[in-house]
Amino acid sequence: MAQRVPNVVVIGAGFAGVHVVKQLRKARCNVAIFDRHNYHLFQPLLYQVASAALSPGDIAYPIRRIFRSQANVSVVLGEVQSINLAKKTITVQGLEQDYDFLVIAAGSTHSYFGKDEWAKTAIGLKTIDDALDMRKRMLMAFEEAENELDEVSRRSKLTFVIVGGGPTGVELAGALREIAVKDMQEDFRNIDTSSARVILFDGNDRLIKQFPPSLSQRAKEDLERMGVEVRLNSRVTNVDATGLNIGEERIDAQNIFWAAGVQAAGVSHTLGVELDRAGRVKVLPDLSIPGHPEVFVAGDLASVTDPRTNEPVPGLAPAAMQMGRHIGRILRNQINDGTTLDPANRPAFHYVDKGTLATIGKNRAVADIRGWKFGGFFAWLLWGFVHLMFLVSFRSKVFVMWTWIWNYLFNSRSVRLITGDVHYSVRKVRDVTPSDYHPVPEDVKKDVVVTSA
Amino acid sequence: MAQRVPNVVVIGAGFAGVHVVKQLRKARCNVAIFDRHNYHLFQPLLYQVASAALSPGDIAYPIRRIFRSQANVSVVLGEVQSINLAKKTITVQGLEQDYDFLVIAAGSTHSYFGKDEWAKTAIGLKTIDDALDMRKRMLMAFEEAENELDEVSRRSKLTFVIVGGGPTGVELAGALREIAVKDMQEDFRNIDTSSARVILFDGNDRLIKQFPPSLSQRAKEDLERMGVEVRLNSRVTNVDATGLNIGEERIDAQNIFWAAGVQAAGVSHTLGVELDRAGRVKVLPDLSIPGHPEVFVAGDLASVTDPRTNEPVPGLAPAAMQMGRHIGRILRNQINDGTTLDPANRPAFHYVDKGTLATIGKNRAVADIRGWKFGGFFAWLLWGFVHLMFLVSFRSKVFVMWTWIWNYLFNSRSVRLITGDVHYSVRKVRDVTPSDYHPVPEDVKKDVVVTSA
Repeated sequence: MAQRVPNVVVIGAGFAGVHVVKQLRKARCNVAIFDRHNYHLFQPLLYQVASAALSPGDIAYPIRRIFRSQANVSVVLGEVQSINLAKKTITVQGLEQDYDFLVIAAGSTHSYFGKDEWAKTAIGLKTIDDALDMRKRMLMAFEEAENELDEVSRRSKLTFVIVGGGPTGVELAGALREIAVKDMQEDFRNIDTSSARVILFDGNDRLIKQFPPSLSQRAKEDLERMGVEVRLNSRVTNVDATGLNIGEERIDAQNIFWAAGVQAAGVSHTLGVELDRAGRVKVLPDLSIPGHPEVFVAGDLASVTDPRTNEPVPGLAPAAMQMGRHIGRILRNQINDGTTLDPANRPAFHYVDKGTLATIGKNRAVADIRGWKFGGFFAWLLWGFVHLMFLVSFRSKVFVMWTWIWNYLFNSRSVRLITGDVHYSVRKVRDVTPSDYHPVPEDVKKDVVVTSA
Repeated sequence: MAQRVPNVVVIGAGFAGVHVVKQLRKARCNVAIFDRHNYHLFQPLLYQVASAALSPGDIAYPIRRIFRSQANVSVVLGEVQSINLAKKTITVQGLEQDYDFLVIAAGSTHSYFGKDEWAKTAIGLKTIDDALDMRKRMLMAFEEAENELDEVSRRSKLTFVIVGGGPTGVELAGALREIAVKDMQEDFRNIDTSSARVILFDGNDRLIKQFPPSLSQRAKEDLERMGVEVRLNSRVTNVDATGLNIGEERIDAQNIFWAAGVQAAGVSHTLGVELDRAGRVKVLPDLSIPGHPEVFVAGDLASVTDPRTNEPVPGLAPAAMQMGRHIGRILRNQINDGTTLDPANRPAFHYVDKGTLATIGKNRAVADIRGWKFGGFFAWLLWGFVHLMFLVSFRSKVFVMWTWIWNYLFNSRSVRLITGDVHYSVRKVRDVTPSDYHPVPEDVKKDVVVTSA
């Protein structure tokens, strides 16, 4: 008879969950990792899928393949509906699964500040499907503008609003301007794609507030130099099908992208334990839930203060990986050495901030590496290098690098595909067969004023 | 005042349409090319997207970018609903567009032999969205089988049926077996993925009937060696949600892929001219419609007999390209030199058969090059080389080649992503946290018999 070994259940195969499981390679336990998707997603590059620079397959990797040679791991596709801490079970697809140890790393989703009806118009960027949806909307906007006779409608189609000036918002805004100015310019006949407005709103008085103020200022200036309109201290008061309101001001925009607000994955509300305002679970210094030393929370779902700095641990990829490794090591020791379950005897989690990077556009990024603050080309190179380094598979590293080099050399985002259902909503179609032969001279900037033939 | 120049309208940006427009680079005319999608698709490699080997962006390329420097071309995203030959107009999105010359190259779709209700279960492979849907179903089948306790259900989930033994059916069958045997094998814990049945049905007495019988036989033997069950002279009599009927025989299969039957795009029925049984337009030897020398049909939509061989021109990519170039040259001469519109004065279209290739699996293909018939590794290399050569962009050539080399070396299809809506339909979920610790030994073949813990 085999000796009974504990069951470790991990919810979520993001940065935190994957790193927990990797630490358990040599632990005498069965591990089951649950995720809604069959892939691990490298979220920091998701905006590059949304902006047609990378393919989904470049940044998403099958979870099964990550753990193919780790024999004590089962990968299960499915959504965890609830957790019962008293019974030590989770419910997946209506069926109960029991656990001895549980790691909750289900991540976060967008917060629309209680206005969930905005989600339909102002799409967020958390999954591959979100990114493909965003890509479709962005490409359709240019397609529709090309054939739109109505001046006001065309303006609205060529207005891209991004709500939220964190790293994702900043990166998306920069990428959209680059598409409009560099990629699309020569492909359209009736519109000057570089006239597309990209407006970035943030409720704070500066962008990327994870960075020191000097770099926030630099990011703002870089974006403005690229043609992005940056609007700080601006709170969205309404979003509807044709645009949004910022206080008294109305902006007609067909494309509203949401990069603001974070709230914890819904499963945290089924725990019956203390949550913070964003729905995150308040955990002890070792990352376990108070009163439940066998249950840990990692990544965006964990609300924890670093005892060394007295600062809350930020919701960033490096923090999630570090939390995952921390929990994985505690579990491995616990399981293999049979130490007691007392959280007080376990090491506290310390976040090691190795630096923060955000890219703004080609050759432009900002970096804050242990107090060393800089921007520009070198920060941009470093950003690329670090991201390649952390991509989960060797294949992804190689293919993303190739694609980046290619896109850099040829100024071309070639994953410009409109897939999925398309609702073409042009109000008047331009007559595409005018009677006069007038090829557009290559050296003349195209005019946005369209005259019907 | 500019002199009035003719409007050329091209419907469809497939192989035929794109080649028509390319020939008109130096013609004094306005060209408008309409397509339902914003991309030109390299259809011969679509099955590789369906089988997770390539990304959509590798084989689809924005139409606008193909013609970005051809100043007399407008690209319009939209579906052509009808054509009025008498008024010389087409209707797109409810609006009429007039033409002086029209080229109809709208392609073909699947034929379910009048049983259109089968389309929901037995999905075809014509668009990127079809391929992504097929990929999702294939990957979900393995995911669901992994957790399925019910033996009969699991069998059905691991049964892949392909209807139609043309090149697409053959390529798909081979790819599915390779996935099951090589790619997935080590990624699953509860099932032996290589036990997946792949059954290829065809109504004829041999596969790939475009090829000489000896190569049909070779393809059949190669497939069988890979573990594909090839069933000839088999007509599908019913398809429903849980399987299909072949005459009296019932096969339970969750995955039915349709690679049989071709019918012309619906727009041909709005012409009011003579069509063949498949809905294709019967055209004169110059590819124009009888009585309408200003209207041409190209590609899969054209029904034409080569006057030299007295054989019908096949519905293949090379034939479509040749037809496109033929029509483009006629139009260019007509427009630039003002020759009369008499079809009798125009050159007849001759199909030049440079050879036919079909791939079966890794290192396996068949080739018939001007009567030189061979199979195996060299045919497979040639197949790869020819397909790379015809990919529309330099980027696609380079990226597909890289990906192929990678997949070849590492036996890995890494675009194994399940995207879009997922309906998880496992009837009983296996308990993934058994109480006994039993890592699967690397050298022991996994058993398909699952015992609940």
